[in-house]
Amino acid sequence: MLKATVYVTIKQSVLDPQGVAVQGALHSMGFSEVEKVRVGKYLELQLDTADRAEAEQRVKAMCEKLLANTVIEDYRYELV
Amino acid sequence: MLKATVYVTIKQSVLDPQGVAVQGALHSMGFSEVEKVRVGKYLELQLDTADRAEAEQRVKAMCEKLLANTVIEDYRYELV
Repeated sequence: MLKATVYVTIKQSVLDPQGVAVQGALHSMGFSEVEKVRVGKYLELQLDTADRAEAEQRVKAMCEKLLANTVIEDYRYELV
Repeated sequence: MLKATVYVTIKQSVLDPQGVAVQGALHSMGFSEVEKVRVGKYLELQLDTADRAEAEQRVKAMCEKLLANTVIEDYRYELV
């Protein structure tokens, strides 16, 4: 049993409207020190496997095929 | 200038329909080793402040007031 955590973030060159909205909301609540917000996804996967090397490859494939849109998003993952 | 990363996850006792959907999609793509998926949010905040202790308090307040719904979500944050 392995646990993988996947972080999916919007590429720096791509506009993040959700982040802009969150920043606007924080400003209007008085948190004026917030200069920039980027919103991404955080996934925890529980994997029924003990083979770490294989799991790493499989998680990479999941990210490429489903979890991230690699045109506009970056991803990184960790096995714990 | 400090950077804060905030992780917002759905509480273990709360159903995560998005995670169930992602798991179903992964299964149908042949990733049958995926036993459980939980989907959360990942935020990067850029803060215009140098006071670490104050920033920590402020980020906590942002989480409590806006970024997380503490009834159904947990949050944690790091300053980097």
